Amino acid sequence: MEKTRGQVTIPTDMDVIPQTVRLAEKWGADAVRDCDGTEFPVALKDAGMKVYATYYTTRKDNDWAKKNPEEIQQMYVMTPRYTAVDDKLRIPLMKGLNPEMLALNKRDDITRWWEVIDRSIGEVVPPESWSFEEESGEAVIRSIPFHDYTVSFLAYIIWDPVHMYNATVNQWEGVEHQMTFDVRQPKTHAFTLQRLENYIKSHPYVDVLRFTTFFHQFTLIFDEQCREKYVDWYGYSASVSPYILERFEKEAGYPFRPEYIIDEGYYNGQYRIPSKEFLDFVAFQRREVAKIVKEMVDITHKYQKEAMMFLGDHWIGTEPYMEEFAGTGVDAVVGSVGNGATLRLISDIEGVSYTEGRLLPYFFPDVFYEGGNPLQEAKENWVTARRAILRKPVDRIGYGGYLKLALDFPDFVDYVESVCEEFRMLYQNIAGSRPYCAARVAVLNCWGKMRSWGCHMVHHAIYHKQNYSYAGVIEALSGAPFDVRFISFADILDDPDILKDIDVLINVGDADTAHTGGEWWCDPVVSAAVKRFVYEGGGIIGVGEPSGHQAGGRFFQLSNVFGVEEERGFTLGYDKYNWQEHPHFIIEDTPSELDFGEGKKNIYALDGAKALAVREESVQLAVNEFGSGRAVYVSGLPYSFANSRLLYRAVLWSGGMEEKLCRWYSKNYHVDVHAYEETGRYCVVNNTDKEQSTTIYKGDGSSFSLTLKAGQIMWYEIA
Amino acid sequence: MEKTRGQVTIPTDMDVIPQTVRLAEKWGADAVRDCDGTEFPVALKDAGMKVYATYYTTRKDNDWAKKNPEEIQQMYVMTPRYTAVDDKLRIPLMKGLNPEMLALNKRDDITRWWEVIDRSIGEVVPPESWSFEEESGEAVIRSIPFHDYTVSFLAYIIWDPVHMYNATVNQWEGVEHQMTFDVRQPKTHAFTLQRLENYIKSHPYVDVLRFTTFFHQFTLIFDEQCREKYVDWYGYSASVSPYILERFEKEAGYPFRPEYIIDEGYYNGQYRIPSKEFLDFVAFQRREVAKIVKEMVDITHKYQKEAMMFLGDHWIGTEPYMEEFAGTGVDAVVGSVGNGATLRLISDIEGVSYTEGRLLPYFFPDVFYEGGNPLQEAKENWVTARRAILRKPVDRIGYGGYLKLALDFPDFVDYVESVCEEFRMLYQNIAGSRPYCAARVAVLNCWGKMRSWGCHMVHHAIYHKQNYSYAGVIEALSGAPFDVRFISFADILDDPDILKDIDVLINVGDADTAHTGGEWWCDPVVSAAVKRFVYEGGGIIGVGEPSGHQAGGRFFQLSNVFGVEEERGFTLGYDKYNWQEHPHFIIEDTPSELDFGEGKKNIYALDGAKALAVREESVQLAVNEFGSGRAVYVSGLPYSFANSRLLYRAVLWSGGMEEKLCRWYSKNYHVDVHAYEETGRYCVVNNTDKEQSTTIYKGDGSSFSLTLKAGQIMWYEIA
Repeated sequence: MEKTRGQVTIPTDMDVIPQTVRLAEKWGADAVRDCDGTEFPVALKDAGMKVYATYYTTRKDNDWAKKNPEEIQQMYVMTPRYTAVDDKLRIPLMKGLNPEMLALNKRDDITRWWEVIDRSIGEVVPPESWSFEEESGEAVIRSIPFHDYTVSFLAYIIWDPVHMYNATVNQWEGVEHQMTFDVRQPKTHAFTLQRLENYIKSHPYVDVLRFTTFFHQFTLIFDEQCREKYVDWYGYSASVSPYILERFEKEAGYPFRPEYIIDEGYYNGQYRIPSKEFLDFVAFQRREVAKIVKEMVDITHKYQKEAMMFLGDHWIGTEPYMEEFAGTGVDAVVGSVGNGATLRLISDIEGVSYTEGRLLPYFFPDVFYEGGNPLQEAKENWVTARRAILRKPVDRIGYGGYLKLALDFPDFVDYVESVCEEFRMLYQNIAGSRPYCAARVAVLNCWGKMRSWGCHMVHHAIYHKQNYSYAGVIEALSGAPFDVRFISFADILDDPDILKDIDVLINVGDADTAHTGGEWWCDPVVSAAVKRFVYEGGGIIGVGEPSGHQAGGRFFQLSNVFGVEEERGFTLGYDKYNWQEHPHFIIEDTPSELDFGEGKKNIYALDGAKALAVREESVQLAVNEFGSGRAVYVSGLPYSFANSRLLYRAVLWSGGMEEKLCRWYSKNYHVDVHAYEETGRYCVVNNTDKEQSTTIYKGDGSSFSLTLKAGQIMWYEIA
Repeated sequence: MEKTRGQVTIPTDMDVIPQTVRLAEKWGADAVRDCDGTEFPVALKDAGMKVYATYYTTRKDNDWAKKNPEEIQQMYVMTPRYTAVDDKLRIPLMKGLNPEMLALNKRDDITRWWEVIDRSIGEVVPPESWSFEEESGEAVIRSIPFHDYTVSFLAYIIWDPVHMYNATVNQWEGVEHQMTFDVRQPKTHAFTLQRLENYIKSHPYVDVLRFTTFFHQFTLIFDEQCREKYVDWYGYSASVSPYILERFEKEAGYPFRPEYIIDEGYYNGQYRIPSKEFLDFVAFQRREVAKIVKEMVDITHKYQKEAMMFLGDHWIGTEPYMEEFAGTGVDAVVGSVGNGATLRLISDIEGVSYTEGRLLPYFFPDVFYEGGNPLQEAKENWVTARRAILRKPVDRIGYGGYLKLALDFPDFVDYVESVCEEFRMLYQNIAGSRPYCAARVAVLNCWGKMRSWGCHMVHHAIYHKQNYSYAGVIEALSGAPFDVRFISFADILDDPDILKDIDVLINVGDADTAHTGGEWWCDPVVSAAVKRFVYEGGGIIGVGEPSGHQAGGRFFQLSNVFGVEEERGFTLGYDKYNWQEHPHFIIEDTPSELDFGEGKKNIYALDGAKALAVREESVQLAVNEFGSGRAVYVSGLPYSFANSRLLYRAVLWSGGMEEKLCRWYSKNYHVDVHAYEETGRYCVVNNTDKEQSTTIYKGDGSSFSLTLKAGQIMWYEIA
């Protein structure tokens, strides 16, 4: 087969110029980039590749930062709770925080921008009743004995958290701590536009400005021991300053309170049901960020360069799934691909010319050390990402880090070559067409479109014991033959008719979180709309504690739809007789030992529902009929091939489309089939590192047997 | 050793007269009784035993019931939720209910006593918008599409649920269903007093009226298949009638609503945080029930008979732990002993002359069948009850059921003889004295004194997956060397000083239940009082989700006291580093595989706390210091000898009394030591059915080695 070329980005550095050229040839790379901690060798500017320059909008100019300390970026931080034991309480503000990273903002009026709260009663302590003591760094509060207090305050980010992380992981010695300046503020704003123009002018060989990123870092805090203390990839608490907040106040039309950002210390994490004020703030940030992004993109375009945004680091406020983003003119988005969901997080973005996935592993010494196994990580990453790429491809792939490190792993280098080849082939075969979709599926939560593919993520694709059983659903969807969208309760409230375009609704997560909706289910318009949707023939799948919120005599607000309820002690008096397990379409080809991950305790089936799996006196999987519609309850669904199959079947069954089962279908669930009817091609892909035999069903139901090698993808004509 | 006699009650029946005499001699019984389904043989009246007559206050007179159908007892029932699909909804009221047991009360004004509720919005549907359709038995409701509705209604109890249960279990053929009449209503009230007097006059040989019971059955409902549908041993929903409710209304000074009893379908089960209205109702019932109980006791006394109350069946409203009870003049209480906690439930009652524990097994064919093993059940029951008897003895023991069935099990009969001997000896040795107590412990929940020893009980001592890990604490306490009391949040609110007499507080159960307190923790007086108590040196032990209620930025409202918090998604962004397990005084002699029962997921330790046991990324046991006080967190503590030891140590450590460990103490935790300093005696008791060797520590710290036979109890002089 002839070697192809293109759609691949390779990292470089001063010390690997010839190696870059050699590897670029091998991988067919058509773009070359620098990274944090590396420098671009200008010698490579004529190597026949597009040149990406990582551009740091908010850092790498400490002179400016130092000259304009009031325009250094800030974040809101809340102290832990301290219990008063008498009528005076002292709270050390910086305890637990890294003083190299954060410095109190005492410049602005602390009585306006800080907030002391009596958390025992949820009331603000008036500024007259507390003061800040400079010498000790403590807030001194007139307190009620045995009430608990917190202080919310603004701190300057005097060391960019990502720079700090990179410096710590790579043990960079003697590097100056890069400060972050706030591009939103007037002086820095003007300076930044000029700085960008200067940069472009002085780097004429650069083709693509890879903005890393725009203006606000996701929340990331380190403690005194330089350990990560708090992280939220979606966090907005480091996107604040009195300048910004005063403008927000004006737009919102109501007074700002630190508590809107602090959120009792939860910082509006993605699991929190978002408050109106926080959503207002995010919307304000989106609009304001988009304005300045556009200015920078315009400058970039003025010099015929492309503007690429890195979806990470200082990406807060850009919100690529919201309408403001398309208006920025950004040409491309690049992001890190941790799994299928993070791939779709990039590839589903609309309004850009192209997207790029930065595959793992990143060439850093934590993986590329003597005895390390970057090849294994690369294989897992590729096979995982490929499922999603086959549904909706990114337009390019790439790698990052120190190329030098990769050179010591020739098997890794060879594998990347095969990945690049395979990627180009599948991209060509898909050719921008829409793959076959068996059903239209909508994930329903409080965030909707804005957190498309990213719901249940805390720090990008990182595992948590509390999220993998739910994130597994999103991961399964990322490679499943469905048209997937993300809708919010507010969307339904605004227009219940949006449910008309949906075959199956999915509600996933723990009770009283933004993922399942909590009190939203007490809105009768919302709950009636969902019940009507199912009653009239729609499907619904609930995972974990769907619609979970204690109210009106039940915990699952849709208990009569799902046919299950959770025992929280209140219904122990009711005898429960419905425990028999039934065979069912949904689990016909899944293994007998179903994996529900963390699962749930204390779930019981109501009369009429059918339990499919019961473990330790708790229903883990059940089905129910409601009117003409159908509901499936699953206690948890960590990502696995078997669970992807279970979800596929659950969608078909709940949507009343069982007859679609054997279309573009592999009997062996380790193998996927994707059909592109527009281009007349389909592929069969082995998602495992073992040989797999299977029967493949085509769109017309005809079938044939097949054996695939480990990881193999095979392309066919539909004809 | 000379044979002793007394303090034992034996059941009898017409067909076992000589056997009764023989067994009474063998067991040393000094009282003889009839039971439901048996008849007392008058020939035994001169057998030298007190004669108990089971007296059914509210049933066994169907003539009266039929003549006064409006005074048949009633209960409130709620239908399940039904979802309207258009503007008219029909709800079949009796669906799921046994028509032999319940009949709709259509006699009283249904617009006043029934309630239709739109549960989607929690609003009452006005009577103009619904009607009852006689022919179909359905409520017809003008509905909003896809809202959920329930109907709350009154039904007559036309078959006493206990009679129904006994008839079903024993397959009684052709018995007339006994109806229950409401002694609270005027005609039946007058009739009842006369009936009692007649009964006493016509049964001159009876010494003790064993009231079974007074007026209101605990909630017990059967479904169409005669299966138990709902049971709550503490349930008040079968203690209602318009007559009673109108009086309640007058006393309470606010209008009654069915919802006060229905409670969203939860019927104010013990796990529910009780509403003011429900507590008002219970208090009203206590007062009214006590009045009529006193009338009946007075009649009993007039004829020089004793009045004994059976703590079960129609016991609702008597509430033996509340002050009204002592004023009734009841001479004795008898109850079923399922375990240590139910023993204390009887023996801790104050204001009666004596208490009696009815040991298990009950002589019914479900245990006494060919091939059955009543001996084993008797052994377990006795050894379990004995732990608690040694802390606070009942004054008598007894058995119930069909004596004839027991006769076929001679080993059982022999074992009962040894139990009776042992009971009389320990009673004599204790001689009413107070055993040594190492600490004053208070269980804190929403019910306090009223549910002493009964908290976490649903149907008496019956196991639930959801309660055994918490009920285990109460069971351990029932035999532990502590002065145990039960207090409520309201008690603290009324007088925070009650905490001054307590060494260690215990809060046990799931979040947002009456057992842990839910929103009560948001009352700053309560939370401050508890924090102050610990800060100033008190101990606190939390089990499960102590102080669990989402508010003010935390889930465990005492998270800074316990040093642990529950991850509910909202703090996933916070890194958690405190996972190391530490050795500790509390677990020094417990097995390495600690048993937390159901345990808890997602518990993490805060800075400063010490984890003692971590399982599957969740802290199961931790300790923390708070001021001069100490806190222990345990995720669950099912009853076992090892966990009793753990609890003993946790109490001593949290109370700062570790030095008391080796007083009246057995190194081997299968063996207990109880000391009665007033009588100068102490005992060592093997709680297992195996031989046990141990070292025994006396009150002065001196020790000796000892081996005990299975189940053995040994008595010593303190000297």
